[in-house]
Order: sequence, then structure tokens, then C-alpha cells
Amino acid sequence: MKGEILSIGTELLMGELTDTNSSYIASQVPALGITIQRMSQVGDHLKDLTEAFAQALQRSEIVFSTGGLGPTQDDLTREAISAALGEEMKVDPVLLEDLKGWFRYRGAKMPPRNEKQATLIPSAASIPNNQGTAPGWWVEKDGKMIIAMPGPPGEMTNIWTSQVAPKLKGRVKGQVIITRNIKTTDLAEADVAERVAKYCETENPYLGIYAKHDGIHLRIIGRGSTEEEARELIRPVEEGIIAVMGHHVWGYDDDTPEGAVATALTEKGLTLATMESCTGGLLASNITDVPGSSKYFRGGIVTYSNQAKVASGVPAEIIEVHGAISQETAEAMANAARQRLDADIGIGITGVAGPSELEGKAVGTVFACISVDQRVKNLALRLPPRRAVVKHRSVTTALVELCRLLNEL
Amino acid sequence: MKGEILSIGTELLMGELTDTNSSYIASQVPALGITIQRMSQVGDHLKDLTEAFAQALQRSEIVFSTGGLGPTQDDLTREAISAALGEEMKVDPVLLEDLKGWFRYRGAKMPPRNEKQATLIPSAASIPNNQGTAPGWWVEKDGKMIIAMPGPPGEMTNIWTSQVAPKLKGRVKGQVIITRNIKTTDLAEADVAERVAKYCETENPYLGIYAKHDGIHLRIIGRGSTEEEARELIRPVEEGIIAVMGHHVWGYDDDTPEGAVATALTEKGLTLATMESCTGGLLASNITDVPGSSKYFRGGIVTYSNQAKVASGVPAEIIEVHGAISQETAEAMANAARQRLDADIGIGITGVAGPSELEGKAVGTVFACISVDQRVKNLALRLPPRRAVVKHRSVTTALVELCRLLNEL
Repeated sequence: MKGEILSIGTELLMGELTDTNSSYIASQVPALGITIQRMSQVGDHLKDLTEAFAQALQRSEIVFSTGGLGPTQDDLTREAISAALGEEMKVDPVLLEDLKGWFRYRGAKMPPRNEKQATLIPSAASIPNNQGTAPGWWVEKDGKMIIAMPGPPGEMTNIWTSQVAPKLKGRVKGQVIITRNIKTTDLAEADVAERVAKYCETENPYLGIYAKHDGIHLRIIGRGSTEEEARELIRPVEEGIIAVMGHHVWGYDDDTPEGAVATALTEKGLTLATMESCTGGLLASNITDVPGSSKYFRGGIVTYSNQAKVASGVPAEIIEVHGAISQETAEAMANAARQRLDADIGIGITGVAGPSELEGKAVGTVFACISVDQRVKNLALRLPPRRAVVKHRSVTTALVELCRLLNEL
Repeated sequence: MKGEILSIGTELLMGELTDTNSSYIASQVPALGITIQRMSQVGDHLKDLTEAFAQALQRSEIVFSTGGLGPTQDDLTREAISAALGEEMKVDPVLLEDLKGWFRYRGAKMPPRNEKQATLIPSAASIPNNQGTAPGWWVEKDGKMIIAMPGPPGEMTNIWTSQVAPKLKGRVKGQVIITRNIKTTDLAEADVAERVAKYCETENPYLGIYAKHDGIHLRIIGRGSTEEEARELIRPVEEGIIAVMGHHVWGYDDDTPEGAVATALTEKGLTLATMESCTGGLLASNITDVPGSSKYFRGGIVTYSNQAKVASGVPAEIIEVHGAISQETAEAMANAARQRLDADIGIGITGVAGPSELEGKAVGTVFACISVDQRVKNLALRLPPRRAVVKHRSVTTALVELCRLLNEL
């Protein structure tokens, strides 16, 4: 089934917001058997919007829209759909009562302008929205569908996962597309490509190789008339890839480095502490992005000066002899973090984030160390000389390597 | 002048990439007198692409495209533009020599498939790209323009700032739009709206009020036939707003909280240290996103447990009496950070990031403290109960408040 996505709002056309709703929806629909053939951003003008809906309905069988469902005169999605279908909006008494209740519950009276959020057309059913005042519209007419959802990403994804996706599942006839993403580390793209070459020759399943900031991703796409059929196509390729990539695999699908670390640390009952300089707290921040990380993360120290390093337990002579930007200092930082914060594992990171070189070492030079028991794993990185890249890639690499090390323990 | 943006690539329609090029271009063109009326993402199919270019040219006077300029058979932007304009692509000998030179310089021989990157049509001039093999196309025909640029954001923005924007500047007839963004804190949207109400009545200059994660933004948009005319329209409104908002203003335009803090600390020659629990290192990480932050940032401690707090200098009895989630603990953390890391200013943040409540305090409860000399500034926040929001908003608020405090010193 062919689909399109319309994102509605003049702020998108002014560059004030980046449209993330479209890529979210686009990433979700292949598994439902829908192929997106166009996405568009349109401003809050009735004529443009009506034309956009009408054109999309000509090209595609299903149109997803986000935005334009608010109560103001700039919110014109309902009006545009009505005009494109030649139907008339009417206030639905049940929806109106719900909406008034929403305001009552918050101790407020519904402003009159919100009344239009309780309207429907004959071809539309309401999609409840428990996070805001704007219900969506589920429209079906002449074999075509429009799913109109609110624009705030939190409300949209909530409506999507709780209502739209379950209702669409199994309804859509045609191909089901299933993907499996295998995340690897420590091998260059060309090496990975050589190892998996024999899986690259078929169109279905299709194997894509992507260089990402956390390593090389191998994405298998299978197409079938049912989910099972698509999965069966993927299975042998997945098993073959895992066999040839071995311990270079660190995660799957939506796994993040910090999420994979969380799983491994929790399984093994181990605790973690960090000491970082060039990454400036990003390592600790990524680790604590995981809910429940306080169970295994003792804490971290950001030592942005040599004094701070020494005050936090790094021997001054190590810095004097080897320099602050050295493998030895990274190791001393990892050990000091473990001891100071009473953790099983310590990570130390030191390097040059830029803009200028330090101790004669180029921007992008990073040393990291993971210390567990008697064992240390040292990492010497040479990253692209951009501050944000150095911070991000250093943290990702350290977490991915910790993950691999935990899997070997 | 009316414009459209086309982003080209099937990976956009698969949700594998979010299109950030469009919002970049959209944010740049108003000052050049161009109003974007539609943006679209189209896959790598010649028929779809040709139709997209043809439709855009019907609606708009200038079309910007990104992507599809690579050497593979999936890269079809040149072919689509040629088809839409009914012109024939031919290899340009000068471009071909340049391209071969690009490969020679890197010690490689140009693969035959790259030859199509050296093609032009009669209406197109080449836009050099010193960061990759894909030159852009600058097309003019029958009073309409197409600017085709490569898809990688780094190459696109480089071409944009170095060549496209300067060449477009002054060429586009019509309105010039200038914006000025004033960033405020510590007042609710309704209060701000009341204070600036008298500036909301005109269409030109236009005043927009936006609630953002770092406070309320007041965006003044002026339209004139020249840049000076537009600026003259904005000036009295800007001065009036600064007068009524007073010390609630913390920044302008692209200022970030960490950037404003950097400026203020550098001006006053003061140093900073942090101790954070619920924000887990994000405060230190944001501070160190600024190049040169090592000049004023001593370091930070992430105390993700009570033991770590005590080991870092927070008196155990303060945690026992008041709890770890308290104003008193935040203040003790700020003071301990200053002392431990030998800084002029300390920031302490403690709170509940979720998913569960702590010490009977709800998710979203945050206490922060900024300690300077004998002075402390306490902040008690009640944020939406989502982990990422709690981390982000706590950090932003602390930095904005530090900024205001520094401006008062």
C-alpha cells in the first residue's frame, strides 16, 4: 500500500522546527505493509493544505498528517480535509462533552474557540488523545484513508503506538517489510563488507551496510506477504552474519550503547564509575539517560584541569611523566574512579576536544581505559577534529567497548 | 519571491534519516527575501522526482534541492531536472578535468561511473564543492531558478554559506525579512504576553511569543524592501521589549545558556565547578560544549548516590536531616563543588529524574543552588515527569539563572 505524510505548520517552513514526526512515521510503517512515496511540509494556509491533501489522495491510498489540530484560527487541518473530501464539519456532542470534561478536570472552563476540536465529518471517526485537547481524525472514504494526528511529537507518538499502529496492523493488504539491524564495532566498513559479501547479492532479503557513529550497522530487510514469511527470509542471513562477525556484534535494532551497558551490568551485578576530561560529563550523562541507572552507576568525576585530576586521585607523577593526554593517565583515571567511588568497573577518558592542540597532541587524540579487576582495556582513538564529534564518538566507543568486555566476562 | 525545497533520497522515506537540510535552508532564506511555501521529501525514482521538480516550478520561482548528486544509478537529481526542463545532459570537459584532478590528488583514478558528476545542461552552471565529488547545479530558465546541492549536511551548508547565499543576496527582488529573538526567563508566558501586549498589534513588525525549554522567546520579524528598512522597523520594538522585560532577558538570537555563561564568566574572570545528581553529568557536558571552557570550568562531580555525595564533601547530617532531595543538600553540593574544585562559583543540582519517586518526592522535583561568595541563589523546580525533560530543563534553568546572577554582579 502506498502512503504519504503531510506535516502541517508555517513554523516548519520558517525553519523554526525540524520535522521529526515524518521520519518517525516513515520508520514505523514498512512493517505494516505501507511504503511511503512522499513526505511534505505545508504551511497554515487553507488553499495550500486542501491542495496538498487532494494531491496526496490522488497519488496514495493512505495519508498521514501531523499538526494543525489545535484550537486557533491557524489550525486548519480539519477544514482542509473537509474541503478536500467535500464534506461538512459538525460539532459532535459526545466529543464536546469529553472536551469540556478535560477542562473541568483541570479546574478550567472550556474557551469557546476549543469547540472546533470537537468537530467531525461523516467520513471521520475521532482518535482519542489523552495527552492534549486535540483528538485525531481517522478518515475512510472511497477506499482511501487519512490519519490526522496532533503535531507535538509526544502526543503523536503516544497516539501512534496506542491506537493507530494497532488498528492498522493486519488491515493493510500487501507486502510486510521486516527489518533487523545488527550493530558492530571495531572493524572498518570495507572489512565488514568483505565478511558479509555473500549476503549482499539478493534483493530479498536485502542487506544494507551503514557507517554510523557507533560502528557499522548491518540492516537486513525482508519482504513477505505475512510477517512470518518476512521473518523467515531474514533469519538465515541474521544467523550467518552473527557467525562471521562474532564478538564484533554489540547490539541489535534500537539498542543504544548505554542501554546495552545497562543490561550487561544488571545481569552481572556490577557497578560502574567514571572519570572524564575531554568528554566533559557526556559519558556520565549518557549512562544516566537510562532509567534505573542509579542501581549500577556510582557516579562520575569531570576533571577539566590537572589539579582536579590530582585532587581526584590521579598520581601527579603520572601526569608529569606521561602528560595528561596519555594512555597512562587514562588508566590512572579509570582506577581512581573505581577507588574513589567504590565501583567494580572504572572508565577513564582523556583527550583533546579542541579547538586547539594540547601537549603537542592533535585535536581528536583520545585515550580511554576500562578497568575491571586486574584487567584493563586500553583504547587509543584518533577522531575527526570537531569538538562535538570528539565528545560523542569517545563516549560511544567507550560504552560499546565496555559492553563487549562485559559480554566476554 | 516564493520558494520550495526538495530533499531527495529513499532513505528519508524509510525513516532512516531525518531531513535537517530543509529546516536549515528554510531558516536562511527569509533574510534573502524568499518565502518557503512547501518542502517535500522524494525517493530516488526518476518519474517521482521529475514530477516533483515540475510541480514545484509551477508553484514557485525558486526551487532548492538537496541530495541525489552522487555517482550511482540511484542518484537521479540531474536526470530529473533535465527531464523537467526538457534539456539534455552533456559531459562538460572542464568539470571532468576538475573531477579527475580531485581523484588524482587523492592518489586514485576516477571510476567511470563518476563521469556523470561532470555533466551539465544548457541552463545549468556548476556550483563547485570542495568537500566532495558532487558539484551542485545553478539552473536558470524562463525566470525560474533551481539550486541543486549535495545531500550530506556538511557539504550542503558549506556550499550554502560560501556560494549560494552570497550569490542570491541582493539578487532576489522583493521583501527582506529580518528577525531578532529575545530570550527571557522566570516569567510565565501569560505574564510576558501582558508586558509586551502593545507590540503585538502590528503585522509589520510582527511579534511572536514562544514558550521554549529555556524560557519565553520574543521573536520580532520585520519586513522591508532593504535590510536597513527591516532593521529600522525592528529597532523600537526591541528597545521597548528590553525596557519592559529588564533583567528577565538573558540572551539574543542564537545564544545558548552555556554560551551566555561562557561570555559572562570570561568577562568577570570567574571560575565554575558543579556537583549534580539527577542531571547525571549533563550540566558539566553542556558547559564543556563551549570551546575554551577549560579556561573557566574547573570540573564537576556526578554524585549518583548518597555515599558519593558524602565522599565529595556534602555533610552526611544534612542528607540525614533534610534528605538528599532538598534545598539544603543542593546548597551543600554547590558549596562542596566550589571547595573541592577550587572555583569561585559552585552549582549543585539534586532531584528526581524518574521513573520512580524518591524520599516521597515526585518525579520532576528538582532543587538547585548557585553559590557565589557569601551569596546563594536557590531554585526549586517542579518539572514535567519525564527523565529527559527533567535533566534538560534543570540544566538549562541553572545555566540561565547563573547568567542572570553574573549580569547582576
